[in-house]
Amino acid sequence: MTTAETTYGLASQLVGAGLTGADLDAEVLRSDHDNVFHSWSAQNHLPDSVIAGGEGARLWNHAGDQFLDFTSQLVNVNIGYQHPAVVEAIREQASQLTTIAPATANRTRATAARKILDHVPDTFSKVFFTNAGADANENAMRLARQVTGRDKIISRYRSYHGNTGSAVVATGDWRRIPNEFARGHVHVFGPYLYRSEFYAQTEAEECERSLRHLEHVILAEGVDTVAAVLLETVPGTAGIMVPPPGYLAGVREICDHHGIIMICDEVMAGFGRTGSWFAFQQHGVVPDLVTFAKGVNSGYVPAGGVIISDAVARHFDETVFPGGLTYSGHPLAMAAIVATVTAMEEEGIVDNAATVGSEVIGPRLTALTEDPVTSPVVGEVRGSGVFWAVELVADRDTREPLPAERMSAIRRRCLEQGLLVTVAGNRIHVVPPCIITAEEAEQGLDILVAAIAAEAGEDN
Amino acid sequence: MTTAETTYGLASQLVGAGLTGADLDAEVLRSDHDNVFHSWSAQNHLPDSVIAGGEGARLWNHAGDQFLDFTSQLVNVNIGYQHPAVVEAIREQASQLTTIAPATANRTRATAARKILDHVPDTFSKVFFTNAGADANENAMRLARQVTGRDKIISRYRSYHGNTGSAVVATGDWRRIPNEFARGHVHVFGPYLYRSEFYAQTEAEECERSLRHLEHVILAEGVDTVAAVLLETVPGTAGIMVPPPGYLAGVREICDHHGIIMICDEVMAGFGRTGSWFAFQQHGVVPDLVTFAKGVNSGYVPAGGVIISDAVARHFDETVFPGGLTYSGHPLAMAAIVATVTAMEEEGIVDNAATVGSEVIGPRLTALTEDPVTSPVVGEVRGSGVFWAVELVADRDTREPLPAERMSAIRRRCLEQGLLVTVAGNRIHVVPPCIITAEEAEQGLDILVAAIAAEAGEDN
Ligand SMILES: Cc1ncc(COP(=O)(O)O)c(C=O)c1O
Ligand SMILES: Cc1ncc(COP(=O)(O)O)c(C=O)c1O
Repeated sequence: MTTAETTYGLASQLVGAGLTGADLDAEVLRSDHDNVFHSWSAQNHLPDSVIAGGEGARLWNHAGDQFLDFTSQLVNVNIGYQHPAVVEAIREQASQLTTIAPATANRTRATAARKILDHVPDTFSKVFFTNAGADANENAMRLARQVTGRDKIISRYRSYHGNTGSAVVATGDWRRIPNEFARGHVHVFGPYLYRSEFYAQTEAEECERSLRHLEHVILAEGVDTVAAVLLETVPGTAGIMVPPPGYLAGVREICDHHGIIMICDEVMAGFGRTGSWFAFQQHGVVPDLVTFAKGVNSGYVPAGGVIISDAVARHFDETVFPGGLTYSGHPLAMAAIVATVTAMEEEGIVDNAATVGSEVIGPRLTALTEDPVTSPVVGEVRGSGVFWAVELVADRDTREPLPAERMSAIRRRCLEQGLLVTVAGNRIHVVPPCIITAEEAEQGLDILVAAIAAEAGEDN
Repeated sequence: MTTAETTYGLASQLVGAGLTGADLDAEVLRSDHDNVFHSWSAQNHLPDSVIAGGEGARLWNHAGDQFLDFTSQLVNVNIGYQHPAVVEAIREQASQLTTIAPATANRTRATAARKILDHVPDTFSKVFFTNAGADANENAMRLARQVTGRDKIISRYRSYHGNTGSAVVATGDWRRIPNEFARGHVHVFGPYLYRSEFYAQTEAEECERSLRHLEHVILAEGVDTVAAVLLETVPGTAGIMVPPPGYLAGVREICDHHGIIMICDEVMAGFGRTGSWFAFQQHGVVPDLVTFAKGVNSGYVPAGGVIISDAVARHFDETVFPGGLTYSGHPLAMAAIVATVTAMEEEGIVDNAATVGSEVIGPRLTALTEDPVTSPVVGEVRGSGVFWAVELVADRDTREPLPAERMSAIRRRCLEQGLLVTVAGNRIHVVPPCIITAEEAEQGLDILVAAIAAEAGEDN
């Protein structure tokens, strides 16, 4: 193809040639579409935005257009863009030692494990590090299968656990269907009163019936075959369905009763997102394994992992754990974890997420369900911390989802006003960085509310 | 557990308290064993070395003990430790923008893709980025299954493809057995004359028979069910078995004949390791998909991916590719790729690997098979570039592997002399960074040869 010279130098030549930031954005877009193969997409239909830099809750392109971010990218930049302490820690570690094999002890890695263990109950004693969320779940399932000697994993429809072989089959959304190459995976419905699978009228009824459903499936599959129940503590991509009171405690009880490992996938919900360090802490339960990624270091360097209960960890004192990966406990990723968790502690970032959620985002979004202009299209609002979903409907009685083109119109209106929002099906996910200020949240909500109102107005 | 304060500050307090580097090494080891769960291990039997820093082909601990590295960690640090240009590129990118979602175009990502495409034939047109080798293979298998509409993947015994759900089942070594939860995976034997599955006497015979075996398995499985043949171009962990002339061309022909996608796993063999950019380039074939990780940026930041032929890429112009991950094309990893590939080009690092291999490592290791002292225990020597295996045997006639405790003794002797070597079964893998100088290679070989000679002497 073209020579190394040409392609590598191109962007800087453009700038050197006095071309504008907008030219550079266009050039980056062209080069991206030519050379980069994109996930979950048809390649002729790629998004059309370039991001060149950011700070806090704001991003910009080469042309200098600024965006307030209500997405945290893939709900991972909890600490905001370019947090100076985390950037500095990465730069420091890069100068010291970027990489070392997992079997070699390394100071930054040991510290990172301790920093994480400091924020979970005493029943947990070790951390296994991976590169991201998918392989965190792969290894949690592996641990559960090894410890129990059973093979089935029960997870939920309306869930996402990652794109690798077992994680994608544990996943309960459409992404599983073309990838179904692992066996031993069974799916159940979870509680979701707004679209109840159980004909429930109340949260309590939904909770009780979804627990009964889980128990029935375990019995029907054979208790002795089920290694683990794997669930997102708060299902994220599927719609931020905060579990009703008692649901997670009920799952814990069922697992205890049948000797099943309880795995909470906190890849998206963990590290401040819901307004506590981990989402399970708001529900009075302690799982056996917790998987994490994203917020652990805000994705500044790829990392994920499994927090392991002492009981599970002890099983492998003399038994070989049959899992591993080249970059397990990668020093650069570990340095970013140590700095991120420290900054979150010192700057009260988890509390900030809780406060902005309960004082600004929650009240303003909830008001949309009452507002005469917006209420016809706002079916339900739910969430906590900086983790909120607004479910939009074409008809409040039938709860028919707002069609895709109308969702896109809302997104486009926000973008025109400099606000990035996530559209997932018929929902807007309001998931800004945990460091967002009340003022920034208000600014973004002004734009979002106006966009929803304008779209609701289209009905008249 | 203990408070954040105590654990985070511990190591620096030690130093502050005037304790020695050796104390610090001991403390790191203790904290690592307490908090970090390790891969492929029983947790009471963890390795006992600490690494604090490195440069080029050398590493050191906090006490200041130096080691010459013949391992490249997990055969990934092709460019050596702390290459200044790569470190600087990471520091630069960290200051600019550490992370951005895959769907957003980013200049560094587009450049990284082009840099990689510059080193493969014109038949390739796009790169899909992942976090590492396992998910590179997951996505290559996904591409093949989607394009062909078939589900079976044929891979080899004596191979390793990663620890995630499908990758670990494609794997052909013991690590697959406790993890066999994906379906549609079939294994064949590859060419390995020294331990032939095919009763072959010559390389040509081994080649022909292993190809016939592959063809027979494809026919027996049903041609219309086989999506891909996935093979390490040069099986690495399994023993660095350089394929006999004609083998890969034969696989290509079989794949073409049956409409099967040919995937070369170059996670370990790629980016200079064998003395060329990719190992397949030494065998006159072009696969449809090439998976990479490790050497692409020497693991300075976790990254991997799939290089995709234009024919396969085009299939997804209007069809959604059902795979993806949060950190696909992570800017920090991409910056390390751009800088690594550039440095390899500018500093002739691939040529250096070829030269040191053919002029120093190859000749000296091969001489061991003739040397009256060492030859009784040296069964076979094979490799190219900086990718060599010495197969040690208790008996040259029966080819009975040298037992584990004798292999450990060799490893220990090398370590005492400051040389890190990889022991894999009954083999020593000599896999230094591609930047190793002839002098350093000679120094290390002096130590290794002496250690093998001493162990051979134990027989007398
Ligand atoms: C709940 C949950 N689990 C797992 C994953 C997979 O993480 P990754 O993309 O880092 O593999 C995601 C990603 O969005 C997620 O939201
Ligand atoms: C040939 C090969 N493929 C895949 C992998 C898996 O790579 P990773 O550990 O980065 O997932 C490895 C790792 O050693 C490998 O050698």
